[in-house]
Amino acid sequence: MTPADLPGFFCCRDDLDLAQYIELDYAFECYGDPRTAAAHLCSEQSTAQWHRIGIDEDYRPRFGAKVLELRVDGQRPTPTYAASRDCGSGEVSVCRVTIAHPHGNFGPRIPNLLSAVAGEGVFFVPGIPVIKLLDLRMPDGFLSAFAGPRFGIEGIRNLLGVHGRPIFFGVIKPNIGLAAEPFAELGYQGLLGGLDVAKDDEMLADAPWCHLERRSALLGEARRRAEAVTGVAKGYMANITDEVDRLIDLHDRSVANGANMLLINALPVGLSAVRMLSRHTGVPLVGHFPMIAALSRLPGYGIHTRVLIKLQRLVGLDAIVMPGFGARMGMDESEVLDGVAACLAPMGSIARSLPIPGGSDWAGTLEGVYHRVGSVDFGFIPGRGVFGHPMGPTGGAASLRQAWEAVVAGVTIEQYAQTHQELRAAIDAFGGKG
Amino acid sequence: MTPADLPGFFCCRDDLDLAQYIELDYAFECYGDPRTAAAHLCSEQSTAQWHRIGIDEDYRPRFGAKVLELRVDGQRPTPTYAASRDCGSGEVSVCRVTIAHPHGNFGPRIPNLLSAVAGEGVFFVPGIPVIKLLDLRMPDGFLSAFAGPRFGIEGIRNLLGVHGRPIFFGVIKPNIGLAAEPFAELGYQGLLGGLDVAKDDEMLADAPWCHLERRSALLGEARRRAEAVTGVAKGYMANITDEVDRLIDLHDRSVANGANMLLINALPVGLSAVRMLSRHTGVPLVGHFPMIAALSRLPGYGIHTRVLIKLQRLVGLDAIVMPGFGARMGMDESEVLDGVAACLAPMGSIARSLPIPGGSDWAGTLEGVYHRVGSVDFGFIPGRGVFGHPMGPTGGAASLRQAWEAVVAGVTIEQYAQTHQELRAAIDAFGGKG
Repeated sequence: MTPADLPGFFCCRDDLDLAQYIELDYAFECYGDPRTAAAHLCSEQSTAQWHRIGIDEDYRPRFGAKVLELRVDGQRPTPTYAASRDCGSGEVSVCRVTIAHPHGNFGPRIPNLLSAVAGEGVFFVPGIPVIKLLDLRMPDGFLSAFAGPRFGIEGIRNLLGVHGRPIFFGVIKPNIGLAAEPFAELGYQGLLGGLDVAKDDEMLADAPWCHLERRSALLGEARRRAEAVTGVAKGYMANITDEVDRLIDLHDRSVANGANMLLINALPVGLSAVRMLSRHTGVPLVGHFPMIAALSRLPGYGIHTRVLIKLQRLVGLDAIVMPGFGARMGMDESEVLDGVAACLAPMGSIARSLPIPGGSDWAGTLEGVYHRVGSVDFGFIPGRGVFGHPMGPTGGAASLRQAWEAVVAGVTIEQYAQTHQELRAAIDAFGGKG
Repeated sequence: MTPADLPGFFCCRDDLDLAQYIELDYAFECYGDPRTAAAHLCSEQSTAQWHRIGIDEDYRPRFGAKVLELRVDGQRPTPTYAASRDCGSGEVSVCRVTIAHPHGNFGPRIPNLLSAVAGEGVFFVPGIPVIKLLDLRMPDGFLSAFAGPRFGIEGIRNLLGVHGRPIFFGVIKPNIGLAAEPFAELGYQGLLGGLDVAKDDEMLADAPWCHLERRSALLGEARRRAEAVTGVAKGYMANITDEVDRLIDLHDRSVANGANMLLINALPVGLSAVRMLSRHTGVPLVGHFPMIAALSRLPGYGIHTRVLIKLQRLVGLDAIVMPGFGARMGMDESEVLDGVAACLAPMGSIARSLPIPGGSDWAGTLEGVYHRVGSVDFGFIPGRGVFGHPMGPTGGAASLRQAWEAVVAGVTIEQYAQTHQELRAAIDAFGGKG
């Protein structure tokens, strides 16, 4: 990178056809001149060597990523994450940059997009030891190449006949070890007590002690039985997380057996495989979050969760489980809200996904989640708060519904518990750890 | 977790049937008692709630992950990565733990393994704000459920007829923007000059300005032409990184057109999709490393590259490109060597993968890579060092071969360059940046 090369990697929005670009926000720390570092960041993630030897040509105007905005927020004596990468020495500048990256370079394809915006050209840039991809914004034309969620919030609400309130999920526990019969019985009890959806844990897939074939048949039957008893629609969410070449078959068999929602661990399976499954699915797909923390938990390094949630929505997940509020997960509240917004905010032609912020929830955490989310468009997803309830799953599920009744009535759960024993028992069992 | 619960998560190797367990090494920092934190780490990644309410049962003996070794290396006033997760306060203990995790919980399935060893149960453990998965060791019985590389190092050597020396790859540059015709011409020149394999950049896939169909046809033909001219076997490695449901078709068409190796960006596509492709492939598969840095570059957080390289080998990549030695990538040398070892070390029935450590290599860096790797079983993979050579790709490729001749002859490249102009030109062009 020579001084003469720099201007080719800087541009103004007014000079670009923005429909041809995605916008990327990065936070980075760099040795030396921030403009040079930002130009390297553009070069490395797009054109790199932009002409053949001995030929007067320049591929940057069409193919180069370009700096739109660069801000230097200050200096530090050393990078925040000291040993991340040895690519300079001395003081670093703390920077924020917005880059326009021509999406024609990779097309509407998730693996190629990821390779460009979070690949070698981002994490091995000369002079940049520390970097985090904070956000990506895609123009409507690019988004329209994706189908997005096939059901989305409205589809899930219609499936369950639930409107005007949060949707109550319960993660059947013990998550690992139970045979299909007692496992299904627990789910049935939870559904009877007031769960909308009983679900497999993200760790329980097609296990030899609890085969998905058998489990989905029993829980499909339990779901229908609970519907007959309660008179309302119910859900069973089967976890079909597995090798990519088994997904379609597991989908077909689980759905035929009566699963009417499916869980999939998005990053372990791969976002592109989720997109493939979404093209095929006959029921809402729900994503779970393993591995995302490894990429996202450090404030200054990696990939922000909002990026990964936007991509999960883009590939068609109708609902997205994410680490939620409260002490158990230890998340920064603003980051959870970012994730919720990534599910709900307008996104071209892409439907909204149901956000499901979770982590050791129980009846007592419901009102707080509701107020933080700011609407009823969320899923509430306890495990132990339902299946570890001292009165069993039926009591646990009832305690959730009672907690919601208290919210609607505008009274505290302590007040409401005076006349509702399941809620009282929940407070006694879980309240000390709220 | 009560004090009475702790012993259920500790065990000795002598008391376990080790064939039923994978071993996991983690580095972590924890608030409070390290034994309690380690027990939580086991519980969260396996059984969690291990009995039903009101029933006297314990799923830990069969399904629980168990601490084999726990070492406390010291204390710190705060976690290394301060804002990673708010799950305690005050001093932390710096720990290393080895855990035996029963692989029957997830089976020989990559997405389920990843969900267990790098999911919620690892990155959201009570009292553990900072954690890194350092290694995993799998017993032979578990490994035997995987086919591993179908070609491996020996298969690649036989394909190319190259024995007793490193394999010379060249990344055709400019990587993005060239139409298929000039792109193929560059590849042809590189093959003529002495490259064993001309390859697409990991950022260039099935692009509208350079469709894979056309590119693979032209480069397949160029490869055959170069073989006819030089009298030795040559390779063209097409990048088929794309959405999962296109991989098989792109494989078939590229190979039919004459690509005899294929590149795939392993994490962006998904390790499980790579396994699917490996079951199908008729040619060696080469993995590239986008996204891995986002997981692995911090010494104390995330997932170590050796884990991700072992898994890439397990799912069947015959060669694995990784960030290499030298100033350009800024890698710690020991980490690169770990990656090389993850390709080459014995691993049950799984064949060796060819390690390809890379990053701004040129003729002058070859000897150093050779000495660090300690054998000829590696791939050398310049881009600009071949295609940015002042005498063009033929000269660039020749300079690599001359550098190897110098190693074999036991003379410096400076000496050898006295009678080899391509090497001389490489030193003049790139030597200042070596």
